[in-house]
Amino acid sequence: MDFDAAIIGSGAGGYYSALRLLKHGKKVLIIEKEKFGGECLNYGCIPSKALIELSENIGYLHDMPGVTMNYKIDMKEWQEWKESMVKRITGGAEKLCISLGAKVVYGVGSVKDRNTVTVNGTDYTAKNIIINTGSVPVKIKGIDDVYYNREMLAVETIPAKLVIIGGGYIGVEMGTAFRKLGSEVYIVEMKDRILPEIEEDLAREVDKRLRKLGVNIMTGMKVLSVKKDKNYKVSIEGSDTIEADTVLMSVGRIPNTEGSGIEKLGIEMDGRFIKTDSHKRTNIPNIYAIGDVSGVPMLAHKAFYDGYVAAENILGNDTVVDYRAMPFVVYTDPEIAFTGKAGTKSNKVPVLANPRSLTMNQKDGFFKLYYDDDGTITGAGVAAPRSSESITEISLAVESGLSIDDLFLTIHPHPTVSEGLKDAAERRD
Amino acid sequence: MDFDAAIIGSGAGGYYSALRLLKHGKKVLIIEKEKFGGECLNYGCIPSKALIELSENIGYLHDMPGVTMNYKIDMKEWQEWKESMVKRITGGAEKLCISLGAKVVYGVGSVKDRNTVTVNGTDYTAKNIIINTGSVPVKIKGIDDVYYNREMLAVETIPAKLVIIGGGYIGVEMGTAFRKLGSEVYIVEMKDRILPEIEEDLAREVDKRLRKLGVNIMTGMKVLSVKKDKNYKVSIEGSDTIEADTVLMSVGRIPNTEGSGIEKLGIEMDGRFIKTDSHKRTNIPNIYAIGDVSGVPMLAHKAFYDGYVAAENILGNDTVVDYRAMPFVVYTDPEIAFTGKAGTKSNKVPVLANPRSLTMNQKDGFFKLYYDDDGTITGAGVAAPRSSESITEISLAVESGLSIDDLFLTIHPHPTVSEGLKDAAERRD
Repeated sequence: MDFDAAIIGSGAGGYYSALRLLKHGKKVLIIEKEKFGGECLNYGCIPSKALIELSENIGYLHDMPGVTMNYKIDMKEWQEWKESMVKRITGGAEKLCISLGAKVVYGVGSVKDRNTVTVNGTDYTAKNIIINTGSVPVKIKGIDDVYYNREMLAVETIPAKLVIIGGGYIGVEMGTAFRKLGSEVYIVEMKDRILPEIEEDLAREVDKRLRKLGVNIMTGMKVLSVKKDKNYKVSIEGSDTIEADTVLMSVGRIPNTEGSGIEKLGIEMDGRFIKTDSHKRTNIPNIYAIGDVSGVPMLAHKAFYDGYVAAENILGNDTVVDYRAMPFVVYTDPEIAFTGKAGTKSNKVPVLANPRSLTMNQKDGFFKLYYDDDGTITGAGVAAPRSSESITEISLAVESGLSIDDLFLTIHPHPTVSEGLKDAAERRD
Repeated sequence: MDFDAAIIGSGAGGYYSALRLLKHGKKVLIIEKEKFGGECLNYGCIPSKALIELSENIGYLHDMPGVTMNYKIDMKEWQEWKESMVKRITGGAEKLCISLGAKVVYGVGSVKDRNTVTVNGTDYTAKNIIINTGSVPVKIKGIDDVYYNREMLAVETIPAKLVIIGGGYIGVEMGTAFRKLGSEVYIVEMKDRILPEIEEDLAREVDKRLRKLGVNIMTGMKVLSVKKDKNYKVSIEGSDTIEADTVLMSVGRIPNTEGSGIEKLGIEMDGRFIKTDSHKRTNIPNIYAIGDVSGVPMLAHKAFYDGYVAAENILGNDTVVDYRAMPFVVYTDPEIAFTGKAGTKSNKVPVLANPRSLTMNQKDGFFKLYYDDDGTITGAGVAAPRSSESITEISLAVESGLSIDDLFLTIHPHPTVSEGLKDAAERRD
């Protein structure tokens, strides 16, 4: 055998499992068909957070009493900065893997048999195979030549008029950011509300804020066609046609197994996903599947975690997944974060009662803590500034079986946004 | 007895203990000599965080490639916004106390005997007394007419040239903020480094960044005199005299017991502080002391916590203080946060390895996690963006006796700054 593990796809879960195996002396092959680091680092979470950060700073100064600001954004120059920032992360990850002994091969990796992977016509043998082929955006037949997340995050001018098809987290994050950067924005969503994947009270905070920002939210509406001439013409059922210079399609993502060769091996599927057990093994025990291709939620931190579990099992440390405190974040205004699940009880504290949020000129949202009758924390839903950072204390509490008293009696620095969660943990009885 | 508790000083600890007692049906008198909410809300943490937030947004856009920005700040208008924001918090706290039945009296509260407090010549009797008289800035004899935190946070123009005497956390926070807002800044510190109250490696990150921002740091230097004519003339031992339009004095704070009458009652002192036991009781068991006046650290969240402990004891719930995970934050660039204590081991992860920080164009700092041989987390020191928010998961871990494995296996959302702490929790062996 050439390798202890061959990993197809260097995205979040792939390079993470590689690092874990390499640190324990294993021989690792990483196969990447495009850019090292995959979708999240190159085209997803990382560039989108950079753009959102830019828009938030501009939005803050725009709204701040006493501040008058004129600004110009040379998006081409900004994109160069963004690319160099991304390259620092992806290049760093690749170099680290190589310095620890990994072989990195570029091309489409295809499973030939349970111990062989073919790349560009060359066979590599491995004791274990990890499939981490990720996901691709859903495309709608007949709607071509529109923007997806990749193109949207690579724009060299800020759109004058942007129509977003799909009001899920990607659509809403991009809609918020480009609105703050000056675009006229339309979000068209088939379901009756935006962010249908998250709890309604959290989504409502984002909906309210988007409307205040002047975003046109069209829910319960279906796009019939998108025609491209000089501009796009978006035809919507029961509404006027919208003309726009940019159309973003963000109606979801599907697992990517194209070219992976798994169908020949009889690997069991769960719909379009590769089916795995609690060890992240497929029905062929030395073949693992992790990240987006192995099931929802399609999130980089879930992929990291899957990669950890697969690597541990390859290392002989019997390890099963525990998704009980899987966080979910939407980087909107307010920022949405969720972890765990509802309990028998809940406490809600408004952002208006959180001094730190007020110092940021933020007033929308709430902190909702879920717990059981005996006080055990079960989860939280937060719509507040920087909730992506404060949610983790709740994940840690859920993982560790902590109670609202444990949380309440932990001294939170003042003033912080996380005090909102502490306040929600104060006993009401 | 007129009241179950008379609370002298409506600052953080005072209004918090009042709320706790009121919610349990107790009759409460709150005595305030100035503004409801005390130093932190009116003149300290809250206005300073608002100013720092403004400066951070401007600093970010100033440094961001591709962005050209012209801005003007009408500080008078901004101060009006700040005042209304502060008033929302202080007014909200006062109204809540009154709506729950508290009597609020304005004037200097003086303890007459163990059950009587005098305000403006009127005696009020109470079963318990809570002394929460806070602290005042240290003034140096012969140096008059300079700015302290109150005046500094109320400026109606941004200083052209600002000399800060004292490089502790207040001086360094204000120096960073005003530098980003355009002031020429000098920080003069007698000790051989800035932020002498925090760990040296954390302080070094702030020192490096301040120098990059162009702040003049003069350590190991003593101010001999400050003369005010049209401008200030600051004479420094072994250096040229500096002329400046603004001089901030921030050489520390001392407990405030002026007018409290405690000397007549024979209340035991610990230096200038009121001595308390683990229940926050003075040597007179029905008289409590909380917050700054009862010992270091002088922090609002310590005062809240003290207020909780005093209130619980008054409610008959035997409760002692547990300061083992007392966080400390300095809102600089990078933001500094510390909690707990050193262990036998530590892991350090640089900010450069934290993708979320890079998306914010932040590269300085580190995440340092302390733990014992058996893996039990003992504390952390963080110099990174938003460390005030991420530090709490470590406080919670210390309070709950959690291990580095508990932290590492908690799924942290990606990308977040708090992932730096998770990465520091990865076993190196």
